[in-house]
Amino acid sequence: MSSAGSNAGDRGLGALQTKTPGEKALGGPSGNGSGWTRASCPCCASGPVEPLVLVQLRAGLQQQTKDWVITLIAAAVKQGGAALSAHLGEEPSGDIIVVSAPRCTLLHAAEELGLCKAYHTGDMTAFSYHDRNNFKDSDNVQVFLTLAERQYIVKYELEGMRAQRDLKIPGLPEGLSLQRRDNIWQKLEAVGVVQGMFPLNDEDKLKALSDTWYCGNQLTQPLDMIHAYFGGTVAFYFSFLDFYTWSLLPPAILGLVLTVFSGGVNKEALDSSSDSKVAISNRDDDSQTVSGHMIQAVFSMLWSTVVIEMWKRRSTMLSYRWGTMQLAERFSEPRPAYHGNLGVNPVTGRVEPLFPVWQRELRMALVSVPVVGLFLGLVVLGMLGFYWAEAQVQTLHTEWDSLLSSVLLYLPSVAHCHSPALFPSSSVALSPFPFFFSLLIFTFFNYFAVLFHIAFYKQDLPLLRKRLASLLIITQLVNQVTEVVIPFLVDRFISAPKRSEKKDDPQEDKFRNQSSLPDFPGLFAEYIELLVQFGYFSLFSCVYPLTAVLLLINNLTEIRSDAYKICKLFKKPFSAPVAGMGVWQTAFEVLSFVSVISNCWLLLLSPRLQELGQESGVTGTNALLVAILMEHILIFIKMVLAKLIPDEPDWIRVKREQNEFKSMQALGQQGAFVRMLKGPCS
Amino acid sequence: MSSAGSNAGDRGLGALQTKTPGEKALGGPSGNGSGWTRASCPCCASGPVEPLVLVQLRAGLQQQTKDWVITLIAAAVKQGGAALSAHLGEEPSGDIIVVSAPRCTLLHAAEELGLCKAYHTGDMTAFSYHDRNNFKDSDNVQVFLTLAERQYIVKYELEGMRAQRDLKIPGLPEGLSLQRRDNIWQKLEAVGVVQGMFPLNDEDKLKALSDTWYCGNQLTQPLDMIHAYFGGTVAFYFSFLDFYTWSLLPPAILGLVLTVFSGGVNKEALDSSSDSKVAISNRDDDSQTVSGHMIQAVFSMLWSTVVIEMWKRRSTMLSYRWGTMQLAERFSEPRPAYHGNLGVNPVTGRVEPLFPVWQRELRMALVSVPVVGLFLGLVVLGMLGFYWAEAQVQTLHTEWDSLLSSVLLYLPSVAHCHSPALFPSSSVALSPFPFFFSLLIFTFFNYFAVLFHIAFYKQDLPLLRKRLASLLIITQLVNQVTEVVIPFLVDRFISAPKRSEKKDDPQEDKFRNQSSLPDFPGLFAEYIELLVQFGYFSLFSCVYPLTAVLLLINNLTEIRSDAYKICKLFKKPFSAPVAGMGVWQTAFEVLSFVSVISNCWLLLLSPRLQELGQESGVTGTNALLVAILMEHILIFIKMVLAKLIPDEPDWIRVKREQNEFKSMQALGQQGAFVRMLKGPCS
Repeated sequence: MSSAGSNAGDRGLGALQTKTPGEKALGGPSGNGSGWTRASCPCCASGPVEPLVLVQLRAGLQQQTKDWVITLIAAAVKQGGAALSAHLGEEPSGDIIVVSAPRCTLLHAAEELGLCKAYHTGDMTAFSYHDRNNFKDSDNVQVFLTLAERQYIVKYELEGMRAQRDLKIPGLPEGLSLQRRDNIWQKLEAVGVVQGMFPLNDEDKLKALSDTWYCGNQLTQPLDMIHAYFGGTVAFYFSFLDFYTWSLLPPAILGLVLTVFSGGVNKEALDSSSDSKVAISNRDDDSQTVSGHMIQAVFSMLWSTVVIEMWKRRSTMLSYRWGTMQLAERFSEPRPAYHGNLGVNPVTGRVEPLFPVWQRELRMALVSVPVVGLFLGLVVLGMLGFYWAEAQVQTLHTEWDSLLSSVLLYLPSVAHCHSPALFPSSSVALSPFPFFFSLLIFTFFNYFAVLFHIAFYKQDLPLLRKRLASLLIITQLVNQVTEVVIPFLVDRFISAPKRSEKKDDPQEDKFRNQSSLPDFPGLFAEYIELLVQFGYFSLFSCVYPLTAVLLLINNLTEIRSDAYKICKLFKKPFSAPVAGMGVWQTAFEVLSFVSVISNCWLLLLSPRLQELGQESGVTGTNALLVAILMEHILIFIKMVLAKLIPDEPDWIRVKREQNEFKSMQALGQQGAFVRMLKGPCS
Repeated sequence: MSSAGSNAGDRGLGALQTKTPGEKALGGPSGNGSGWTRASCPCCASGPVEPLVLVQLRAGLQQQTKDWVITLIAAAVKQGGAALSAHLGEEPSGDIIVVSAPRCTLLHAAEELGLCKAYHTGDMTAFSYHDRNNFKDSDNVQVFLTLAERQYIVKYELEGMRAQRDLKIPGLPEGLSLQRRDNIWQKLEAVGVVQGMFPLNDEDKLKALSDTWYCGNQLTQPLDMIHAYFGGTVAFYFSFLDFYTWSLLPPAILGLVLTVFSGGVNKEALDSSSDSKVAISNRDDDSQTVSGHMIQAVFSMLWSTVVIEMWKRRSTMLSYRWGTMQLAERFSEPRPAYHGNLGVNPVTGRVEPLFPVWQRELRMALVSVPVVGLFLGLVVLGMLGFYWAEAQVQTLHTEWDSLLSSVLLYLPSVAHCHSPALFPSSSVALSPFPFFFSLLIFTFFNYFAVLFHIAFYKQDLPLLRKRLASLLIITQLVNQVTEVVIPFLVDRFISAPKRSEKKDDPQEDKFRNQSSLPDFPGLFAEYIELLVQFGYFSLFSCVYPLTAVLLLINNLTEIRSDAYKICKLFKKPFSAPVAGMGVWQTAFEVLSFVSVISNCWLLLLSPRLQELGQESGVTGTNALLVAILMEHILIFIKMVLAKLIPDEPDWIRVKREQNEFKSMQALGQQGAFVRMLKGPCS
């Protein structure tokens, strides 16, 4: 029970440590009778404690190390702790710690994060601890903060712990020491004392959520419930998925109409399932559907702009509703990656890790350039490999001509499109920005390089159509299988037997079962999937009008499978409060601009237009000039459209400005008030 | 001395009116011994009064009308007045009112406008009347607010006066009546009682300003002094002119170097002054300067982006320095044009004219479309007229072949480029947005239509070069003449003799002399001139590398002539506090994007590249494709560059965020404070 790093002068830690040495059976070194450490602030000392986060320790740690960690978690922030409550698992091996958070810690952190909550007037206002009594439900944190927010705050506090003076971690053979201002949690993770942590599922809430989410034939998703349970990033992903899926309805109807009216529906189906007589059937087809081709091209250009702009509005609305419009993030240095030197943030006056701007930018540049270069090299290699493999398979097919070989024909496409999956996606979420950015570019090029190559270099529309259809159908099938079916099977037949859950199990065993689930792989792959879909549709759909229909069907199942996945097959992920999709928003916008270029080009290549041009004697160069002119005009229209549709609905603008105005006034009055209190002599 | 519209129940106006009926010799109906009305708030009643604005009344008004106006100006805002001090001219005819502003009125208005001033900490903070003692120099308004700000506030207060109940304007034969909530000043202007108003010059300050501005060989302009004396809009114009002029230095040097190294300097000079042997000399020339052509094209694309981005930074800095970063404008409805219905602004809670959004937008759309259409029609007509006139002149020249006829050759260009000047520029400043926008588009097309026509349709580079050179030299000469020389001559020989100013004239006569100067025509024409210049350079300079040199020389004189003009030849204009160039910023940015398209196209046309293409057997279509690809890449680079250069310097971002953060905190503490004062029972 001696903690090597603490001495008598450290009252906070000392007081806690010298208290209840006989409570080891209950797990914690100090507790209130239930095995939980007592909250360091008196107002939160009583009342029920809610288990929020599970911390996994290395097996076989000495008891004094565990005690030290628990004491630390419970210590006040001033003493280098996290001001949380902790509870050591009840088994003798005891390699888990369950962490909870007292009310005051939660509220203080909510202010620090800049969360907005409903004020007594009904408006969403940035929460202030001083002013807590004016906020609705602020006396009941379980209602006031969502489960996801409470869990995120626990993570935020744990990861924010800093040694207040040089210490040693007791009980470790290495005798590891911490220097003053070191980040404690990072060190604990580095030396392997802490193996990981994850937020605990609340089974009743999870049941209620899954019932309204994917168990029936619901047309809408319970977005608020998702936000409350899973938190910001996850909720925004599903909101976008929802919004995007429904916005596919108009193009899907248009696509169906075009296909039916041009009578090409059978041929299309044929094209996509077999490639015998492709050349002939496509030639017929083109001359019939070419007016549809043009309608579809113009429609998808406008559609992509309108959808992205409307999503921005919806995103702002959601962010207002979920209280993330004024996150304090905006005041902190971008990506303060916790190994930066500590400094005083010039804006907020808080001590936090800072990274000199020039140093960050230099590092970004130095890292980004070679990494992006490397990835682009990989793209080219991948494409060459793909063409080589396809040629091989083609030869094989002509030699064998069996069912097996015709299935093999799709193998190169599938393998090629799944090469980004080779990168361990869990590493993506934590990776520094340049890497993330490069991976995005790489994936993007990887998915589209072949299509672009066919469209712009080979200029072969029938081939483009065939490739697009095969990509749409096959890769999405494969996606669903790799994303859901395989994890499901693994879970059912490999993991589940080990977990044998019973109704009357003690709570702790349930926690232990959760920790046996695999880590949630993050949303990178999910977003990429949507981005690629969006690209297929907005860039190339004019050659294959059924794209939107296929995407719509895919997404309706995607929503359910993603929901099932996050609820059942993986550990619950931490999810930060966020104001939108972040960098993904930009990626979709860029794609929507590229779509203008692509569609103009595909229009130029359309056989009907080329025939028309030849009949009326327009030269290729002049047709090209007209296409360029059209492209510029369309980009201009797109930009004007993007400006004209305001990014936030009017009523939110008013609320936001009200807030700014009130804040400005409050600042003025505060100055006067401070002076008043000081008196005229100051 | 009876004012028909007021009755005994109106205490404020009544009290002022029944007071000093014997002071008519001093001009005002009530005064403090100097002819000035007494300020309605007690703290400002004593002290010297500074004449700020002169209001011109219709000659021959009845005395009671004048008294009524003066009483009104001096009445408190609650009573429908402007809370200013007024002074009727001392001559018996008395058709001018000199208006001043008491300290409290100025400070209240400064808060309402959202001006930032130096706080005791040294940071610029939005001024708050409550907190005035924490602001530097707030006890001395003459230092605290600049002259231009004080004068603008007078205008703002006068134009904001609203009748608090139905009134009649006394002494008018028409017996004009005002309804409750009518805008009084607008009505007075409409019936002709008020003929106009302008801010008064302060001769000492004007002298000091002009000495450091244009009287010597200064390389920099005294921007802070200009801001203090002439105010925001004028100061931003001159800041941009300054910044832009100096940023022309690198391209000017490059242009000189290119011209000298290609040995074409003599030929260039020849080209621009005479068009004999143009075809031959240009052919030689092209083959020599074509590498310069390419360097210049790429350089001017990058240059225009970097200049615009750097200007944004500078503009933010100036706006911080001049305290206009947090103008309350942003909270008011855009363009509340004072004939809207009165309503409560949802953000600030102030009563101000509102215009329902859909109504405004509908009106904009209904007005804009035909107006823009009309103007574009005018552009085409103008261009046709220009070509016709040029053909006529050309025939004339071949017939006569004299010096006169060779001068006549330039007449069509000059006439064509000055057709926008036909629109009365003073009307532009006050015109509603759609009109302004249309005029901008019209002028833009008008100036560039011919050049675009030559570059893109005729594809005749030598002609483009000739036209550009003649436009640069001749139209700028003409501009200087029409803008400065003619007003100077008019002033010197027609107006000045009437004004015969002497040293010992009473102050009032000096005011009267100022009112005989013509109204300042506004900055529209000045900005258009810069925009067109910028266009010449960034769009077409690659065909004529000396463009930047000519522009630099022109601008160095332009700075001086503009400064002289605004100081001496016109009435001082009102100038609102603004945070930047507003819509002009956008215009320059758009132009900088168009420059990429133009330069890529001109590169494609360059004879050297075409020869190279023919030699290596590249077809026209493929060359075009390469040009398009390059254009897209360059636009992408431009966008990335624009993102990479932050719009505000880091230290300003920190200050701004500090402010936001403090405001957010203050709002939280205010809520708590209010609750504290109310007690726990509320």
